[in-house]
Amino acid sequence: MHAPRATSNPFVGLHHADTPLLLPNAWDHASALAMAGQGFRAIGTTSLAVAAAVGLPDGASATRDETLRLALLLGSQQFLLSVDAENGFSEDPDEVAEFARQLAAVGAVGINLEDGMGAVDRHAAKIAAVKSAVPGLFVNARTDTYWLGEHDETETLSRLDVYQQAGADGVFVPGLASAREIGALVARLDVPLNILYSPVGPAVPHLADLGVSRISFGSFLYRRSLGAALEAVVEIREGRRPGGRAPTYEDIQSLGADPARHD
Amino acid sequence: MHAPRATSNPFVGLHHADTPLLLPNAWDHASALAMAGQGFRAIGTTSLAVAAAVGLPDGASATRDETLRLALLLGSQQFLLSVDAENGFSEDPDEVAEFARQLAAVGAVGINLEDGMGAVDRHAAKIAAVKSAVPGLFVNARTDTYWLGEHDETETLSRLDVYQQAGADGVFVPGLASAREIGALVARLDVPLNILYSPVGPAVPHLADLGVSRISFGSFLYRRSLGAALEAVVEIREGRRPGGRAPTYEDIQSLGADPARHD
Repeated sequence: MHAPRATSNPFVGLHHADTPLLLPNAWDHASALAMAGQGFRAIGTTSLAVAAAVGLPDGASATRDETLRLALLLGSQQFLLSVDAENGFSEDPDEVAEFARQLAAVGAVGINLEDGMGAVDRHAAKIAAVKSAVPGLFVNARTDTYWLGEHDETETLSRLDVYQQAGADGVFVPGLASAREIGALVARLDVPLNILYSPVGPAVPHLADLGVSRISFGSFLYRRSLGAALEAVVEIREGRRPGGRAPTYEDIQSLGADPARHD
Repeated sequence: MHAPRATSNPFVGLHHADTPLLLPNAWDHASALAMAGQGFRAIGTTSLAVAAAVGLPDGASATRDETLRLALLLGSQQFLLSVDAENGFSEDPDEVAEFARQLAAVGAVGINLEDGMGAVDRHAAKIAAVKSAVPGLFVNARTDTYWLGEHDETETLSRLDVYQQAGADGVFVPGLASAREIGALVARLDVPLNILYSPVGPAVPHLADLGVSRISFGSFLYRRSLGAALEAVVEIREGRRPGGRAPTYEDIQSLGADPARHD
């Protein structure tokens, strides 16, 4: 479909394979390693969870430090790490590039940067600054035309065109769930398209048929994990046995047993 | 059953009510607030999750700082906070008392201290030091005779007796799941008994009938949350719809909307 750019970043190739890259989004060390243990070669992060874990609103720039902290925990593991960096936590392209450099320095191979429906040129400048500072980092340029906006196909393509030209390695349109619109967008793009999995949108095989290159989960797995804990505690309070599977204490302990970290 | 000691700590009264205190154990800001939102007046923490979230083995003293960090996030919320402090992260009773003082300073009203099957006198000295330094803090003295040891009823009672005399406000025997042994222990104790809920042990109404004063969940809810995320991502990978409930993005966002923290 799309020829990958010349690079030594193995994460790039996963976007140009026969099947879409399934990228689960983790929120801490244990969730990331447990997902990698299910065979996922690459793991993303989710800014909602990073913020919610410490009681900050999603999108708050105070989550910048928490994002870097999580990248530091996950960047040296056996999986490939892509970091959800919101809007780069700054409107200054140089500051965004500096943050991207820090993420790459701790081992991230990819970054998501979202436009929040803000100025197209400003977002393009951030993408270009990151690619200039850290050429090997896979930049996934997200537009929020569906997530926050009016689902305008023309505006979406227009924004993504600018982001591609600025150097984006892939593009991401969370909230886009129409099979027709996904197919039309894939046909017009030069770079891989990332779609956010939705329990009410197309299933994975359907997204694959539509030409989607990457399927990520955003905050869904984190939200489901929290929902399951609430289900369990309420069931127990009512005197019932909780359903579902729980890893054992030893399973969880073994996730932390990385001799490189604990010598 | 047991008359509470004179104190201004409202957490004490929850151990002397008509029904056992159900104390869910949280691992971050969102999980704690979501559980409080289900009507739980008091929330515990779980050292396994605190450690696993950052890739440390449970029981590692490096989790001391993470434990304090979590207490700082949760101590000023609307619920009562009890902190799992492992063995106090030190064998020096004065250092344990200083840590307890820090936890109380950020708002914790209770602390768990485990003996790890170590020397009884040393554990009693820690309990006494904490009660001396922070008399209002509810000290839940845990013995690991069932968790790590041989399930010896005589040794268990002997250890708990020493801990009661050292000033423990309650005692905790994780791994104890036999209805007969629980009932026998309740009859011999002067302070409330805490039992760790187990999906394969007595259900909540049964534990209540046995005279248990507090039922906590240890790492179970955290483990179930992680298990549910893995179930969901594997179901999605296989092209199926994931089951179970997930809070919405807005539900999670609203957990962070504490005006006292985000002004």
